[in-house]
Amino acid sequence: MAQYRITFLPMDRVFIAEDSENLLEIAMKYGIHINASCGGNAACGKCRVKIIKGDVYAPIHPKIPQWEYDAGMRLACMTIPRGDVTVEIPLESQIDRAVLKRRRRAPHILSAIDIGQLVKGWEVDPAVFKRYIALPEPSMQDNISDLGRLMREIKRKHNIENISVDFKILTRLSRILRDSRWKVTVTIVLTRKGCKLINIEPGNTEDKNYSIVIDIGTTTVCGQILDLANCSALKLIEHTGNGRDICTIAESSDYNAQISYGEDVISRIMYSRRKGGLKKLNEVVIGTINKVVKELLETSGINIEHISHLVFAGNTTMTHLALGIDPKYIMLSPYTPTATLIPPVRAVDLGVNVNDHVHVYIFPCVASYVGGDIVAGVLGSGILKRDKITLFMDIGTNGEIVLGNNDWLMCASCSAGPAFEGGGITFGMRAGKGAIEQVKINPTTFEPMILTIGRVKPLGICGSGLIDIVAELIEVGLIDQNGKFKRDLQTERLRAGESGYEYVLCYTLETQINRDIVITEADLDNLIRTKAAIYAGCRILLENAGLSFGDIEMVVIAGGFGHYIDIEKAQTIGLMKQRGLQR
Amino acid sequence: MAQYRITFLPMDRVFIAEDSENLLEIAMKYGIHINASCGGNAACGKCRVKIIKGDVYAPIHPKIPQWEYDAGMRLACMTIPRGDVTVEIPLESQIDRAVLKRRRRAPHILSAIDIGQLVKGWEVDPAVFKRYIALPEPSMQDNISDLGRLMREIKRKHNIENISVDFKILTRLSRILRDSRWKVTVTIVLTRKGCKLINIEPGNTEDKNYSIVIDIGTTTVCGQILDLANCSALKLIEHTGNGRDICTIAESSDYNAQISYGEDVISRIMYSRRKGGLKKLNEVVIGTINKVVKELLETSGINIEHISHLVFAGNTTMTHLALGIDPKYIMLSPYTPTATLIPPVRAVDLGVNVNDHVHVYIFPCVASYVGGDIVAGVLGSGILKRDKITLFMDIGTNGEIVLGNNDWLMCASCSAGPAFEGGGITFGMRAGKGAIEQVKINPTTFEPMILTIGRVKPLGICGSGLIDIVAELIEVGLIDQNGKFKRDLQTERLRAGESGYEYVLCYTLETQINRDIVITEADLDNLIRTKAAIYAGCRILLENAGLSFGDIEMVVIAGGFGHYIDIEKAQTIGLMKQRGLQR
Repeated sequence: MAQYRITFLPMDRVFIAEDSENLLEIAMKYGIHINASCGGNAACGKCRVKIIKGDVYAPIHPKIPQWEYDAGMRLACMTIPRGDVTVEIPLESQIDRAVLKRRRRAPHILSAIDIGQLVKGWEVDPAVFKRYIALPEPSMQDNISDLGRLMREIKRKHNIENISVDFKILTRLSRILRDSRWKVTVTIVLTRKGCKLINIEPGNTEDKNYSIVIDIGTTTVCGQILDLANCSALKLIEHTGNGRDICTIAESSDYNAQISYGEDVISRIMYSRRKGGLKKLNEVVIGTINKVVKELLETSGINIEHISHLVFAGNTTMTHLALGIDPKYIMLSPYTPTATLIPPVRAVDLGVNVNDHVHVYIFPCVASYVGGDIVAGVLGSGILKRDKITLFMDIGTNGEIVLGNNDWLMCASCSAGPAFEGGGITFGMRAGKGAIEQVKINPTTFEPMILTIGRVKPLGICGSGLIDIVAELIEVGLIDQNGKFKRDLQTERLRAGESGYEYVLCYTLETQINRDIVITEADLDNLIRTKAAIYAGCRILLENAGLSFGDIEMVVIAGGFGHYIDIEKAQTIGLMKQRGLQR
Repeated sequence: MAQYRITFLPMDRVFIAEDSENLLEIAMKYGIHINASCGGNAACGKCRVKIIKGDVYAPIHPKIPQWEYDAGMRLACMTIPRGDVTVEIPLESQIDRAVLKRRRRAPHILSAIDIGQLVKGWEVDPAVFKRYIALPEPSMQDNISDLGRLMREIKRKHNIENISVDFKILTRLSRILRDSRWKVTVTIVLTRKGCKLINIEPGNTEDKNYSIVIDIGTTTVCGQILDLANCSALKLIEHTGNGRDICTIAESSDYNAQISYGEDVISRIMYSRRKGGLKKLNEVVIGTINKVVKELLETSGINIEHISHLVFAGNTTMTHLALGIDPKYIMLSPYTPTATLIPPVRAVDLGVNVNDHVHVYIFPCVASYVGGDIVAGVLGSGILKRDKITLFMDIGTNGEIVLGNNDWLMCASCSAGPAFEGGGITFGMRAGKGAIEQVKINPTTFEPMILTIGRVKPLGICGSGLIDIVAELIEVGLIDQNGKFKRDLQTERLRAGESGYEYVLCYTLETQINRDIVITEADLDNLIRTKAAIYAGCRILLENAGLSFGDIEMVVIAGGFGHYIDIEKAQTIGLMKQRGLQR
């Protein structure tokens, strides 16, 4: 991948850019403001820049007349450098130098590392593995049962014995052995009590061993297909540029269809107490899981036959509902879940559309409000293996926070609300195509610069976009410390809307929806409440451990939210504070 | 139970009888011939006797006119002694003394003991047991999950730990715990790899723990309900008078509905190879099992909730078919079954109508033609615990024979054919109500004396009845050593029937069916073939072990056939020989 030097005028700042980035993305990355409100889709025509020097790729576009194009004018969102380039930002996009200086933040001590670093060098040793075996054919001298023969050879060739057998294999065992001319691959699962044979396939499919892992969130259900065969061989998770490790073949997510029946776990539990409510909630979340599974299989092109197991992680209520277990007592004092440690379940028994032999392994919960999702996070992020005192945050609709290290772990739970997942925000949406994910606001003109996921016309605002927007609103002085818009500012973008004051991010024509996309004071209130809940959770946890914020050596923010969050912006809105500044 | 001395005249022989037996039964037991062809049902009026002395209960009956009644004439089948009695046999029933003397058999060395003696003192320790537990209610100080609480208390109170849990319990666990005010009974199964919790019931049901055991025969499916709770307490099987041990609450049996699709295992396997054949055979045998289970529950009045587990034993082909496993390779060289060791299966998955938590434990087979039925027999009869060299015979449609002791065991299998189960015999039937089970024939008049099961009018002939009949036919000289009727005898009972010569046991009016019940030369041929197959099996087995018939110290004959067989008669037809006479 080539790298080029990009010089922005008139501020005369020079940055290094990848050859795949366009000028709008480069400017956004390095904090150079260029007006843009269509998300990077060449629709608004506002991100005009002038190429002073250097070679760029930029198609002719109706928003730039020929005479302007000849003079070097281009749309930043459509312009990709092909070498070192000097670009001039036109007047309407420029920010006053004095303002620019004022905006410059203190150098931050918090620094981002990604999950790959946290678990680098860990061995991956899947509980479900495959072994290829070529069996000797039966003869009159050696005519033990087919199953006996298989077990004998598994012991001889792979030294695995005392294997129990899933009954369902038996009905097809003899046929598969003969059709495959006695060359088969067995799938074995390591259980708490030994090995179990769960599947048999003709031929050698050792390298086709995949699992599907599902994070059942209150608002969002996320899934990944993992390649167990090749992870196992490498014994190491290595990261690719896009933040996925090489185990991950495909990702997919969708709203948990339960949101029609309540936004948080308490309202879901309330709904489950109605007649037929539990059944309904169970059905719809299984429906969502099936959608995610289907999409994962389609995206990855992996044959459903090669999915060996499923893993679910969810908070305690989601775990109960996904399994069809009544969550009633989770919300009744003394708040007892039915079970925290769940035995493996056959996926088809739960209604999940995978093969018969596939079992679901469910991350154990800790208590009614500390679920399997956070257990998975603690395990996955390796807190329990390090000396460093770490604060682990899993911020979904239910925020869960773990504090500790390899000696001890404590946990708190807080009702964060769905703001960061797009819930309770007027134009909130999940982090999908069309979601506004990055925003800058010109501190003089209050014109925004907007990038969307997929660089399409905006549809709404996702969690990280929301933090960006609020951080910018604070930075440029559009809102005060109480989260209220300053009524006295002279800009058309600030206006009294139907439900109070609001800031217009995109006008109707620039969006995919037939409305202006705005952020309202009610949205700000929701974000503040969410932030306050998380802050309170952290503080109480620290106090109970006899520690303060200053003692935290590492913060891990779980999930997609953690992946996309801009640490600087999160500090700006007070979601995080630098060490030493906060007590 | 009172006992009386019964003197039969004119032969002046004295026997001891129970106070529940009628004179016909007493006479049959001790070998005194009295004509009777209605099975003991007071229908033929032939079993007339004269009470010389003593008190009897005998209702007035149309077959005995008042003047005869006043003279002491009675129907033997309707006459029960109430004290010591002297009875005179009328002329028409008498057997010439010379003949009687000729008939007297050599004192036999073979003596019958029943299964209860074989296993007396054995401990019964069911793999599925129940434990009652009163749990402390949850509080804010102790609010672990319901399942965690249950496991903790099982460990505290019963010292059982590392229990895995059947997932299906979880959906009702919380409700049952609360509805029962935290007093519950758990059902735990001991598996190869530890304990598993399979059921939970409100209150204390520790003493309601039953299993249903099913013998899946090629021709007949037999079931019993066993009381595990009380057997376990007594640690001993004690026998009641009727041959059942106290564990056995009810018994039921029915023809295996597969017989419509072939009489022996080979023809069943042939049928299973047709399109849809395997599915059909599986469905019908499960149908039969369900009928037997239903009848067992109805007869015993036991609640289906309290059935904890099922046990199946069958030959290898029956085992495969009951599980829906293709038995094809059992009949193809080199004769490999799919599996001999079968993992436990959830009964409902097989289509058996019991509760969800009930698993079926299947007796392991040894090879394609040595099945789980014989393994069960070897285990149940305790051969493997004794020094004595024992010959174990399980004579069904497929005869299986085991030879050995606590040091070694060998097995042979032979195709016996269904003669002893009523198959291939013109009027053959299962050992049920109306089956002719005991027969004597007057050696002078050739008139029969017949007792049926249930003392109702005859329906047909069961296995032990068949042996009785043939033994008598030999004794009285109606047939020769080749199994052919002697054509020159002067008796109406011997005649040329539609399919060759036959002996009439009962005339139409004395039966429940609208035909004479006869035994034909074809029937005799079938019996001879069956006997020959079993004999050949025994002989080959002995030769391979370097032994002879004389080395056998004990013979165990399994099943209902063994229970009802008359050893003397079996010797008469050559099915068994006394030690020293046979080489």
